[in-house]
Amino acid sequence: MNRWQEQLYSLLRFPSISTDSSHAGDVAACAEWLKSMIQESGLSAEIRPTPGHPVVIGKNEHKEGRLNVLLYGHYDVQPVDPLELWESPPFEPEERGGKIWGRGSTDNKGQHFAHLCGVAETMEEKGELPVNLTILLEGEEEIGSPNLRPFLEANREEFACDVIVVSDTGMVAAGVPTLGYGLRGIACCEFVVKGPARDLHSGCYGGVVCNPATVAAQLVASLHDEGGRVAIEGFYDDVADLEDWEREMWAKVPGVSGEGILAVTGSPALFGEEGFSSAERLWARPTAEVNGIGGGYQGEGSKTVIAAETMVKLSFRLVPNQKPADILAKVRKHLESHCPSGVILEIEDGHYGSAYHTDPHSKYGKAAQEALKKSFGAEPVLIREGGSIPIVQDFKEVLGADTLLLGLALPDCQIHSPNENFPVANFEAGIRMNKVLLEELGATV
Amino acid sequence: MNRWQEQLYSLLRFPSISTDSSHAGDVAACAEWLKSMIQESGLSAEIRPTPGHPVVIGKNEHKEGRLNVLLYGHYDVQPVDPLELWESPPFEPEERGGKIWGRGSTDNKGQHFAHLCGVAETMEEKGELPVNLTILLEGEEEIGSPNLRPFLEANREEFACDVIVVSDTGMVAAGVPTLGYGLRGIACCEFVVKGPARDLHSGCYGGVVCNPATVAAQLVASLHDEGGRVAIEGFYDDVADLEDWEREMWAKVPGVSGEGILAVTGSPALFGEEGFSSAERLWARPTAEVNGIGGGYQGEGSKTVIAAETMVKLSFRLVPNQKPADILAKVRKHLESHCPSGVILEIEDGHYGSAYHTDPHSKYGKAAQEALKKSFGAEPVLIREGGSIPIVQDFKEVLGADTLLLGLALPDCQIHSPNENFPVANFEAGIRMNKVLLEELGATV
Repeated sequence: MNRWQEQLYSLLRFPSISTDSSHAGDVAACAEWLKSMIQESGLSAEIRPTPGHPVVIGKNEHKEGRLNVLLYGHYDVQPVDPLELWESPPFEPEERGGKIWGRGSTDNKGQHFAHLCGVAETMEEKGELPVNLTILLEGEEEIGSPNLRPFLEANREEFACDVIVVSDTGMVAAGVPTLGYGLRGIACCEFVVKGPARDLHSGCYGGVVCNPATVAAQLVASLHDEGGRVAIEGFYDDVADLEDWEREMWAKVPGVSGEGILAVTGSPALFGEEGFSSAERLWARPTAEVNGIGGGYQGEGSKTVIAAETMVKLSFRLVPNQKPADILAKVRKHLESHCPSGVILEIEDGHYGSAYHTDPHSKYGKAAQEALKKSFGAEPVLIREGGSIPIVQDFKEVLGADTLLLGLALPDCQIHSPNENFPVANFEAGIRMNKVLLEELGATV
Repeated sequence: MNRWQEQLYSLLRFPSISTDSSHAGDVAACAEWLKSMIQESGLSAEIRPTPGHPVVIGKNEHKEGRLNVLLYGHYDVQPVDPLELWESPPFEPEERGGKIWGRGSTDNKGQHFAHLCGVAETMEEKGELPVNLTILLEGEEEIGSPNLRPFLEANREEFACDVIVVSDTGMVAAGVPTLGYGLRGIACCEFVVKGPARDLHSGCYGGVVCNPATVAAQLVASLHDEGGRVAIEGFYDDVADLEDWEREMWAKVPGVSGEGILAVTGSPALFGEEGFSSAERLWARPTAEVNGIGGGYQGEGSKTVIAAETMVKLSFRLVPNQKPADILAKVRKHLESHCPSGVILEIEDGHYGSAYHTDPHSKYGKAAQEALKKSFGAEPVLIREGGSIPIVQDFKEVLGADTLLLGLALPDCQIHSPNENFPVANFEAGIRMNKVLLEELGATV
């Protein structure tokens, strides 16, 4: 076990659960520990307060003519319940079977700490870094980063940079270095179908009034055609076509084949839009998903009511160049035009954000590819992410810089779940990657 | 206020809530009070224990050659919460605006007590009744009558009868005497659509796996065609056509017109199977209703998950001559054939019972019509009920006798709700009705 792994264990021992106010002291102590570690590696570091948990900032000496790189990570973690499912205590890290087990090992302590270790090694070996580096570690990612964007907006000049590096995503499979260059956007809304003024006896009134649960189901069913395509008029109007190189590369990417998805999700079968592979469906095609539906009696046994209302929560994953507000308007129009007259339909728009896309073949993208190749000893794959990472949008909008997503997580790292783990090999590759990456990025100037 | 109304108040003061074990003593005391009241009217009476709350039995002297009539009622009541919505305390009955307010005033104390008062008056006036009467008052109707059928089965000879009289249903409107001669049956089932092994992140997996909530909605949507007709193959195969006299009578029945239903339910519009009036839809046409649907995140805000499963509770109201088991088999076949391959569908059959139907033009039906006409001073309407009353099935199956449904409730009597009330006029008409009814029934022999 190398010295960095010992230090990572110290970092993992802090129960820095940001959502639980009883752990606020642990979050603060974790930030102090990181500040000290960064200082010991030869950089300056400070704790910066926010209205919530603090941000840890680290900087080397910035010099004229060098590339400005912002390295982002978060030191807060998810809660640990259900505790009884953990095979070893979540805040007592240990190695078993080549993996480091503990809450935060992958998300995100293990990933950003690998970068900090790489920086420390470079400082030891060379006395300086090849770029102007600013480290930004927040303590509120798991609660939606409520204070990060205001913090960035208040300190635009300080955090101005050429490129941003984030290791908080995944590799498609073990040993396959992965560069993410896109994220799907999101648009959420919720609708309620309202019928009778109160729950009705389904014997006394069944057959003469419209059942809101039935209408809600019909509206949900209307969102897709039989081929799995979203059936909302104009939904695909602005969808950018896949490029040929993407189709070719993604066809070879492991982990997003049918078997990989079935193994990880436990789904009985694959399903999706006709004419596209799973990778294309995940990374380059928009979706319409029901995230929640509820109405009437949901307890044990039966209660023969026609419920007064039924609620549906929807979210749409978006791709370039769909516009979230436009999509929400089209969804609203679709739902209203498909709703029968016997009920009242109320729609409320929720949060939304555009898809993110950068060019993996830009000079920074090429530097990232080179760093992945050298540190993992394998050709990197270029992918997009199916999910949405709001901070990446914030960086783009506030700082005007693109983000390289150099994920080190594996699909079975159990982030947010019991038995979170991080392969030692990925930790070590992450340290190597940071060193090569800063070198390669430094050479782009 | 007549003497009976004072006595009804005494009966209403017992908080005989059968579902609440802390009120078991009140239920028992209520039974004792009824036994005494029946004895005071000159009949014999006794309390008969069951594994739950007791049954009160009353009998006059049974003589050869007379009609055997069973009079059924229940002296237990629904709980009273939310208590703060009551305008006067639920167990402190009072008269306001021509109505008696209190829990149980309509359901069912006021209704069966009117019969007891009629019996008492006849006994006072004539010293005997024109029929062999057996009174059966149970204390568990509001919890599903778990012990009534076993009690009847154990005492078949004792309760053998020619006809059964029940006042526990409704009049279509104030001043319109109503004879019920049919009830819809019911068949319940529940299905669960299962997809991934756990809730999935809708960004990471949205688009490549089947969303169980979407499939559940599609299955619900498949149950009806656009005209509001149930779209399950063979669902209408055994449905008996309406008779001409029913169509003609029901067209004139007040209260089941559009406006009546909208006023009582608060629904924004009428809705139902094309080609049928509201009365026909309610009383003579079968339905498919969602009673509950639930899956995924139902809390505040959004949580972008693809939930592992979604549950739907269905019930089907049945009419003559649909067979419940046959309907459940057809529902199962329909759901299975409409379910896509990306999920697992699990269906569980629930409770069921056939529709009930008797002839309102039989000699007993004619006697009931005559009693209603004379006691209310108006021509009675003949209707069926949209709901299902299991005890009526039990009477038919165990005792082999038909039931006359001589309801005294009005649509705004608020049964099961705060501010339950019973019009004084209906109480008084009920007393008159009992006297005429026993006379008319006695004359059928």
